[in-house]
Amino acid sequence: MVATTQSIEKLCINSIRFLAIDAVEKANSGHPGLPMGAAPMAFVLWDKFLRFNPKNPQWFNRDRFVLSAGHGCMLHYALLYLTGYDSVSLDDIKQFRQWESKTPGHPENFMTEGVEVTTGPLGQGISNAVGLATAEAHLAARFNKPDCKIVDHYTYVIASDGDLMEGVSNEASSTAGHLGLGKLIVLYDDNHISIDGETELAFTEDVLKRYEGLGWHIQSVEDGNTDLDSIEKAIANAKEVTDKPSIIRVTTTIGYGSPNKANSHDSHGAALGKDEVAATRQQLGWEYSEFEIPQDALNHFRKAIDRGAQAEQEWNQLFAEYKAKYAEDGKNFEQLINGELPAGWEEALPKYTPDDKADATRNQSGEVLNALSPALPGLLGGSADLAPSNKTYVKSSGDFQKDEYHNRNFRFGVREHGMGAICNGIAHHNSGLIPYGATFLIFTDYMRGAIRLSALSRAGVIWVMTHDSIGLGEDGPTHQPIEHIASLRAIPNLAVFRPADGNETSGAYKVAVERAVGTPHAPTLLSLSRQKLPNLAGSSIEKAAKGGYVLSDSEGTPELILIGTGSEVELCVNAAEQLRQEGKKVRVVSMPSWELFEAQDEGYKESVLPQVVTKRVAVEAGTTFGWCRYVGAEGAVIGIDHFGVSAPGGEAMEKFGFNTENVLATAKKVLG
Amino acid sequence: MVATTQSIEKLCINSIRFLAIDAVEKANSGHPGLPMGAAPMAFVLWDKFLRFNPKNPQWFNRDRFVLSAGHGCMLHYALLYLTGYDSVSLDDIKQFRQWESKTPGHPENFMTEGVEVTTGPLGQGISNAVGLATAEAHLAARFNKPDCKIVDHYTYVIASDGDLMEGVSNEASSTAGHLGLGKLIVLYDDNHISIDGETELAFTEDVLKRYEGLGWHIQSVEDGNTDLDSIEKAIANAKEVTDKPSIIRVTTTIGYGSPNKANSHDSHGAALGKDEVAATRQQLGWEYSEFEIPQDALNHFRKAIDRGAQAEQEWNQLFAEYKAKYAEDGKNFEQLINGELPAGWEEALPKYTPDDKADATRNQSGEVLNALSPALPGLLGGSADLAPSNKTYVKSSGDFQKDEYHNRNFRFGVREHGMGAICNGIAHHNSGLIPYGATFLIFTDYMRGAIRLSALSRAGVIWVMTHDSIGLGEDGPTHQPIEHIASLRAIPNLAVFRPADGNETSGAYKVAVERAVGTPHAPTLLSLSRQKLPNLAGSSIEKAAKGGYVLSDSEGTPELILIGTGSEVELCVNAAEQLRQEGKKVRVVSMPSWELFEAQDEGYKESVLPQVVTKRVAVEAGTTFGWCRYVGAEGAVIGIDHFGVSAPGGEAMEKFGFNTENVLATAKKVLG
Repeated sequence: MVATTQSIEKLCINSIRFLAIDAVEKANSGHPGLPMGAAPMAFVLWDKFLRFNPKNPQWFNRDRFVLSAGHGCMLHYALLYLTGYDSVSLDDIKQFRQWESKTPGHPENFMTEGVEVTTGPLGQGISNAVGLATAEAHLAARFNKPDCKIVDHYTYVIASDGDLMEGVSNEASSTAGHLGLGKLIVLYDDNHISIDGETELAFTEDVLKRYEGLGWHIQSVEDGNTDLDSIEKAIANAKEVTDKPSIIRVTTTIGYGSPNKANSHDSHGAALGKDEVAATRQQLGWEYSEFEIPQDALNHFRKAIDRGAQAEQEWNQLFAEYKAKYAEDGKNFEQLINGELPAGWEEALPKYTPDDKADATRNQSGEVLNALSPALPGLLGGSADLAPSNKTYVKSSGDFQKDEYHNRNFRFGVREHGMGAICNGIAHHNSGLIPYGATFLIFTDYMRGAIRLSALSRAGVIWVMTHDSIGLGEDGPTHQPIEHIASLRAIPNLAVFRPADGNETSGAYKVAVERAVGTPHAPTLLSLSRQKLPNLAGSSIEKAAKGGYVLSDSEGTPELILIGTGSEVELCVNAAEQLRQEGKKVRVVSMPSWELFEAQDEGYKESVLPQVVTKRVAVEAGTTFGWCRYVGAEGAVIGIDHFGVSAPGGEAMEKFGFNTENVLATAKKVLG
Repeated sequence: MVATTQSIEKLCINSIRFLAIDAVEKANSGHPGLPMGAAPMAFVLWDKFLRFNPKNPQWFNRDRFVLSAGHGCMLHYALLYLTGYDSVSLDDIKQFRQWESKTPGHPENFMTEGVEVTTGPLGQGISNAVGLATAEAHLAARFNKPDCKIVDHYTYVIASDGDLMEGVSNEASSTAGHLGLGKLIVLYDDNHISIDGETELAFTEDVLKRYEGLGWHIQSVEDGNTDLDSIEKAIANAKEVTDKPSIIRVTTTIGYGSPNKANSHDSHGAALGKDEVAATRQQLGWEYSEFEIPQDALNHFRKAIDRGAQAEQEWNQLFAEYKAKYAEDGKNFEQLINGELPAGWEEALPKYTPDDKADATRNQSGEVLNALSPALPGLLGGSADLAPSNKTYVKSSGDFQKDEYHNRNFRFGVREHGMGAICNGIAHHNSGLIPYGATFLIFTDYMRGAIRLSALSRAGVIWVMTHDSIGLGEDGPTHQPIEHIASLRAIPNLAVFRPADGNETSGAYKVAVERAVGTPHAPTLLSLSRQKLPNLAGSSIEKAAKGGYVLSDSEGTPELILIGTGSEVELCVNAAEQLRQEGKKVRVVSMPSWELFEAQDEGYKESVLPQVVTKRVAVEAGTTFGWCRYVGAEGAVIGIDHFGVSAPGGEAMEKFGFNTENVLATAKKVLG
């Protein structure tokens, strides 16, 4: 029998626990175990360390908190409610996991203010956090003055066993260690339970030794259930270590407090059940009813409101001093974090004419990036060890490294998924930074989890993908994309852009930048060629930005429409020329982006692809999957639905039918 | 000036080097640096340790060699040629990276005998190797007798920095350490160069410490360029350690021997160029001309032929003794490794009727797996920490663990990509094992690299994916697949199967097993529901195996065809019933697999979807992307092209239009 007078800490911690228990129980769905076990460490973190203003979740200099183990989101929602965020009321908590509630089943930053990133898929949150810490370090290096540190906050993570098993987290953690991101602190909820059961079944590595190898500062807290002092000391120690990220292994009991389900996977992912909820109340001496929070606890939590208001006020003062002393920097800083693009930035976009040399769109992409970088202070990024191939290096800056955080070229290493999650984190720092991440289009396969989350979580990221077809040649079928453009098009909210020449590449970046800072933010993926392509007559940035447009036409209603994207537009142009010489009325449509085209009004779309013109041929060096939408029953598609081959790119293209003769022959067949 | 008499080792090592240099030069494409740097360790391995028969690349008890750093494939091709494999002649080497040559740009097991797995995408090979070692351990535990060890071989890997940066390799390596796979030995070519330049730029972790944390035995060789003795000792040591996998960091110089490009990323991924090739010849004192191999070296290498023949002969004798003593085991072993399925295995497939309880296809999948496991000795697999959710646990066996390698349930942990690559490795052990790997359909995103490779490399794997739509409910949009089925359909050579009920689930497994052992092997991916579905009248294993079939029909030519897959077939059935009551002629087609349907003859396909019937409605709780193929301009698709929502599954399905009323309304609209 537990004494009825509990310390304020116990009251607060159990408040978190029981909000989670009750919410999951009411929804009859969810994950009570982690909130019950991690409540102590979360309380210590939020009560003693986390600097935030519940009434202003967007306060620039707040510490960032990420629950990487997103399934435990009732932990986060409980804290948001208890500390006084307006975004989560008690009613919202009662609506946990219900249609359009503010408390969805995994944390969604676009749904619930106070949630920084979208988690659920394991490994993403901790990797986003590397991006958040990266953004802080970068902005601090760029803007802080010795007497005015306006950028100064920590990034905290609560991560699970599952997070640390995922490869993406090892990638991002290796990067974090390499970069020495000293203001990143991870609390590892070591409850040695996962869905299958004990971690003994599959996860017996020495996690701290691995992290030591990754260059992190390591600590452990033996009793994460009741030893609040040790948790506090460990976090304080971690803050003191400024040249390494820190991980603290906090050993807890999942489902702590539940007599029959604690320390078992039974408490991981299902409601405890009425009887067990009652038994847990008894075991922990919790006399309060469903969703009832003791006033003392609420008062204690709500002190965060005054604390936060004061912290923000102090920062406002500091920033006012900064602006007074460093007017130019102050102006630039404000413009940046408000997401305002400098006026006239589009003037920096290169324009091309058919007289310009034929070039690979990956090269033109490099030219655009280099032209935009001085014009867009927020643009920064890098490649997963393919900078010379992706052409993403910005010559006017250096490498972002330890003690060189002001630079704008990231070296992500051969870590595509880590790169993706880090870029999402940089975007979600919400400070006007526009990150780009690059690799070969084929390796979008390695990072699809992060690409999808950029679309779902509304991250303003630019994905720069080169070597986009069999045209890349000898590297062969393991490297030649076939299904990739189609499969990326299928992701909602992601705009895929496959430019045909320099103007279309500039257009792609215009759109990508606008989407990155738009409302809502949205990601864009560029698909770029390895091989040289001519600059086309009739292309322009403005037309390309519509996603599809008439590149060239005959008089009157066309008999036939040739639709091309990227490297195949040239074939359409050549075939059209010949067909017109033979007296046919042919229109050439370049369609660099389905999504942008579909977003145009009906009148425009009809003007480009009139319904009445049913004879159409689409040409794209990728799968034909999905093209029926634009060519219909009377049309044809020239594509490739099988794996590629290791051979010189020109030969592969030629032999697989990507040549003018084949387009002609197909067109004539369609014309009948 | 180098002395013209070189040791036989130097002659051999330089033979490897110059074949690589010359082949890349001739192709003007490829990666000379790694072969030049890793030639010494590869020579020691192949000369002193690797047990193989060049004249029988399929010899069961051969050691397995994997070049995880697949871009360095000229290293492997050179060794295949030099040691006397028939699969790679000198002409083949001269055709490096040319159309349909046996020496493609990255190693392809289906192209070149002697190559065990397809590599190129980094991190895959070393992870496949965990699967190869897993297969060896499993078969050894099942079949070996104390006096007759017929399964006894090592798995060796040469891996690069890039391989070790990739998250997938950390996942698989953690699993290998957990499992104590003592016969897995990795040589880490530590040349501190990657495409971007020095690894100092991005990869500064203490790799050996990380691997120590992962439970591996660690060693290092300081001078991997010339200290052959140390390389040899390290491999010998590694073989002695029987309870841990081993990694040996061998420090080398990329492009060793090239005066101007050694130790630089310039030698990584491009031909050296005529002048540098000549300079390298001079530096290494190599007097032989293009593709010319000194006879002494060739003779030395070719001793592998006699060695291999003898090793195989000894093994054959051993196996003969085994069969004599242990006839039953011998018979079973032979049948298994020859890929022969036991006669009548299909009888074990459960059959269902509409009277059987409504059930989730994930549950029925579990029933099928449990029924098949005793009937198919090669079937084994597991889940990425979702066994209770995926229902993949086979009750008649235990967990595959250290000292329990005979068991058939794998615990992959939260490591989807590692699981994928490990399963590919198990399949590529080519011993009749049929692995299955399971997770939530949404997390195919995390392992697409491995899924694609299963299709490209012709691996007989079964991918078991559950929770396949918004029907899964409260976990919300981060977990609800939208674009996944379409994007997986777009992968060539992969059959995606979305069964509607128990019979179709059995049918899916029938097909999947046949594909796994077919010629060629091929993977299959199952998409299974979380929620209960009724068993449908008219379904059967045989019909489902055709990929699409008429579930129910009216008399004569239908006016309308309703096409459903998986959980939505029920809606089509219900709507058809109503429409028929209203006097309409309606056909219901269940289409569990596009790929299997397309593989049927034209007559069959026409009989199911007659061209003349243009009024069609397709219903699938996923993206509409690609369905135009089957519904045409006059048809309609009921799907979902936006992200899902966190709410109870039934509510989500209902509100997003997956209900009989909406199918009816859409059908009537189409009928006009």
